[in-house]
Amino acid sequence: MSPSPLTDLSRLCLHTITTKPWSIEEACDRYAAAGIPGITVWRQWLDGRDPAEVGRRLRTAGLEVVSVARGGFFPAPDHAGRMAAIDENRRAIDETAALGAPVLVLVCGAVPGQPLAVSRDQIAEGIAAVLDHAKATGVKLAIEPLHPMYADSRSAINTLAQANDMCERLADPQVGVVVDVYHLWWDPNLEVEIARCGQMGRLLAFHVSDWRTPTEDLLNDRGLMGEGCIDVPQIRGWVEGAGFRGCIEVEIFSTRYWAMDQQQFLDNIKQAYLKHT
Amino acid sequence: MSPSPLTDLSRLCLHTITTKPWSIEEACDRYAAAGIPGITVWRQWLDGRDPAEVGRRLRTAGLEVVSVARGGFFPAPDHAGRMAAIDENRRAIDETAALGAPVLVLVCGAVPGQPLAVSRDQIAEGIAAVLDHAKATGVKLAIEPLHPMYADSRSAINTLAQANDMCERLADPQVGVVVDVYHLWWDPNLEVEIARCGQMGRLLAFHVSDWRTPTEDLLNDRGLMGEGCIDVPQIRGWVEGAGFRGCIEVEIFSTRYWAMDQQQFLDNIKQAYLKHT
Repeated sequence: MSPSPLTDLSRLCLHTITTKPWSIEEACDRYAAAGIPGITVWRQWLDGRDPAEVGRRLRTAGLEVVSVARGGFFPAPDHAGRMAAIDENRRAIDETAALGAPVLVLVCGAVPGQPLAVSRDQIAEGIAAVLDHAKATGVKLAIEPLHPMYADSRSAINTLAQANDMCERLADPQVGVVVDVYHLWWDPNLEVEIARCGQMGRLLAFHVSDWRTPTEDLLNDRGLMGEGCIDVPQIRGWVEGAGFRGCIEVEIFSTRYWAMDQQQFLDNIKQAYLKHT
Repeated sequence: MSPSPLTDLSRLCLHTITTKPWSIEEACDRYAAAGIPGITVWRQWLDGRDPAEVGRRLRTAGLEVVSVARGGFFPAPDHAGRMAAIDENRRAIDETAALGAPVLVLVCGAVPGQPLAVSRDQIAEGIAAVLDHAKATGVKLAIEPLHPMYADSRSAINTLAQANDMCERLADPQVGVVVDVYHLWWDPNLEVEIARCGQMGRLLAFHVSDWRTPTEDLLNDRGLMGEGCIDVPQIRGWVEGAGFRGCIEVEIFSTRYWAMDQQQFLDNIKQAYLKHT
């Protein structure tokens, strides 16, 4: 059962990495001019800038700052590494707050060769260690389960069930979950776990793209919605059925798309959003 | 808890695709000379040959023919395609029987854009359609759950839980499961599902390799055991705890390794088998 079609851009949000060649200033101007109301800022786009100032600029242009990507990467083989990760996450929380974004996305991390269960314990400890800081600054932390092909080095949380479990374990309203169709589409338990996430009141963000066949690169070959095998509207239906009414965030890493004219790509995104999301 | 170390090669089996540059005749001679007792034959290696004759040659050289890879690919968008797949699987069963191998590995298939649940129904129907033929020829069918990164086009069965469920659904002793560490290592339910598979008496084969960081190709960048992040001994312990006493099959697709001297590679495999499996 698909949900009602999207008939306008009022819930559309773009990740700055989707239009990687553009600086934050150019993205701001182009998104606003294109009628795209939301922006999720990757931290690299803040390099050498004052986040508060960037936030003001984005809002002045009429953009809603939906979230910041990304914190996380908590696991490390030694104590010093885990402490450094916690410090880095406090800085990410500060930047998120300064930018005026309500949510920091967490790519939780993994250490090649370290048992995934150990990494998950370190993730729980790391998130717990920054919770007070998140609360004090009003920033929610959104655990993004990553595709199992990233379990070696990027995240030991690879299904929505695991992200929901982590929320239960942390038992803190400051923590929630990102549902990203690229990472989760294959999971036979996805519908059930999205419903569970909604019942827990933890569904903080919804990311869309598509899975191309063949996929030629593990990282940077995502497709535009409609270009691959994911039934994005069906998953949107589940997410909305779980009560989610927030922005729909287009997050596409693609060497192919980054090489094309970004203004043309922006038009393609809008069309794919209205037609295949 | 790791199992007892492997101290000899008595359970070692190689897939012909692991030493892709070698013909079946060369693989036969080289494996036998290297003291490798088992061989799993990929069907391409039988092209233009009489499987019965190949089987005799392998046994004469002292090799055990462990299984044939691969049947499957049952889903198709139309009826004719699904019937063709069933015919092809009957041929694969015939070749397996003629070769004298007890098991045919099934890479079950998926159609990009077709709902995975539909593909799973078509897989169940396809396997059911060839069961009598498998029984008549004495060939067991081993469902191999593939990594979720292959859910678009190679298999709609992506976890051991799904493979076990499929066995229960088919409820036929002719059908079992392959546990391949490359596909399944990330799964938080792996230990439990291996135990379940053993209790069901369905654990037919065990494949090993390793997951490299970074993995540079979705298909052909597997590592030798010990070279990546998978705790292969731990999973072997689970498999043996579930009652499995069969061969340990080394299945490595690697552009890198195929480019090197295959005799040297064979030595490396033996060392990695004894040290990291």
